[in-house]
Amino acid sequence: MGTFQEATALTARGDGEFDALLDAQWSVGTRLHGGYLLAVLGRAACESAAGAGHPHVTAVSASFVEPPEPGAALAQVETLRVGRSLAQVRAALVQEGRTRVEAHITLSRLDGSDPWWTAAEPAPMAPEEACFQAPVDAPGAGMPVPLMAVIENRLDPENLGFAFGTPAGRGVLTSWQRLADGSDWDPLSLLVALDPVPPVSLELGVPGWVPTIQLTGYVRRLPAPGPIRVRLTATDVGGDRMDEVAHVWDDKGRLVAQATQLAALRLPAPQ
Amino acid sequence: MGTFQEATALTARGDGEFDALLDAQWSVGTRLHGGYLLAVLGRAACESAAGAGHPHVTAVSASFVEPPEPGAALAQVETLRVGRSLAQVRAALVQEGRTRVEAHITLSRLDGSDPWWTAAEPAPMAPEEACFQAPVDAPGAGMPVPLMAVIENRLDPENLGFAFGTPAGRGVLTSWQRLADGSDWDPLSLLVALDPVPPVSLELGVPGWVPTIQLTGYVRRLPAPGPIRVRLTATDVGGDRMDEVAHVWDDKGRLVAQATQLAALRLPAPQ
Repeated sequence: MGTFQEATALTARGDGEFDALLDAQWSVGTRLHGGYLLAVLGRAACESAAGAGHPHVTAVSASFVEPPEPGAALAQVETLRVGRSLAQVRAALVQEGRTRVEAHITLSRLDGSDPWWTAAEPAPMAPEEACFQAPVDAPGAGMPVPLMAVIENRLDPENLGFAFGTPAGRGVLTSWQRLADGSDWDPLSLLVALDPVPPVSLELGVPGWVPTIQLTGYVRRLPAPGPIRVRLTATDVGGDRMDEVAHVWDDKGRLVAQATQLAALRLPAPQ
Repeated sequence: MGTFQEATALTARGDGEFDALLDAQWSVGTRLHGGYLLAVLGRAACESAAGAGHPHVTAVSASFVEPPEPGAALAQVETLRVGRSLAQVRAALVQEGRTRVEAHITLSRLDGSDPWWTAAEPAPMAPEEACFQAPVDAPGAGMPVPLMAVIENRLDPENLGFAFGTPAGRGVLTSWQRLADGSDWDPLSLLVALDPVPPVSLELGVPGWVPTIQLTGYVRRLPAPGPIRVRLTATDVGGDRMDEVAHVWDDKGRLVAQATQLAALRLPAPQ
């Protein structure tokens, strides 16, 4: 089982093009995980802009066009602007000549300083040792989640009713997360955490696949070593669409990343 | 003074290209308003995909690369995918051969139905008639805001301390908004409302210009006729970056749009 670094490794072709090898381990069911795909594109953006003084992904917004397959893929990066405090690029993940994911990525230099002002106190959740680690094969999940072998995802029992057929319906899931390879979180791996599994729809009693249409994530500062706390909420569900909002705090309790996504879901017919 | 429809009108060149005339009325200081620029791109996306059965902008994510000038501009739309329930395009606003704003836009068909589930009850705010309409030339604003002549923006007195030099520092601004031309809100004009003016930084006691780096908005349903309620909040401020989160409710109290943006701001030096 490869590390995060290995699973997102690239080989430069030149002219902003990179060969990637998409690793099926970073999947939910048979689909590659969206946050993992953004990490691959984020690494391509960083390598493409190397030397410009903007080493970290600070914003990524992506349209998920067509699910890529595990295996070889091409990451293409086009620079839109390199400025004093940031660089903006477009990055596409291509297979068989078709764009599967396309993103705009903003690069900048992050530090680990505390916020000047914040409204984002860490979500209350049970201590890590009192949480339940999500398995690859969860009873009732309907599909294996290989991602759970590379992300240690310890779910707060407070919001775990869905796993026992009694979802609370509050639209909140909270968890502690670590990389199973033992490495510390960084701006690229945080992109994986910004697309949390399971989707919050399960907690609303809606089973099934919830494909991401659009996801935007911001990395706000370099995380302290140690586990992260992740809170996933929904704001509004209707018209076969759901939004999911993710907040991620580091071990010092500081907001390190946030995301919003629009996803498709098949709601149950009215009874 | 033109209507919203006129200010965002396009002339098709063919091949996904449209001529736009950017209207200085839709400005903050001397800069064209970001939400207005997204509305122009959104209209180009809709016209480009006309006939595909996806008439409404449901998601837009944009990188603001370089401020465009009022006057002629070219909107270029490239289709990424047209599917059964949505279409995904890339749209760029170009002047002098340089991309000024580039966005990914998802089109779909919205309706006016109620949510299946929501956590987004309308923000509490004073009745519209008890709110203060923001003028074009506000004392202490440091710049005229021509946008305030085309958007009637009635600010809740609860959060208006900043206008009198006593910001509450809660990171919240709430307002009622109407289009001054008397037309009802639609998915395109809601993009203007998703980039609220003034920025919430004023309410945190931080003066000055707050340029948007990245903005992502979702339109969730067709709004009912009448005014909208807008709540703008900040989550975390630090490292010369601020996020702003906007929620918009229609006159029936339903969430109709939401957005998140990352903006640059110059924080005061520590004292």
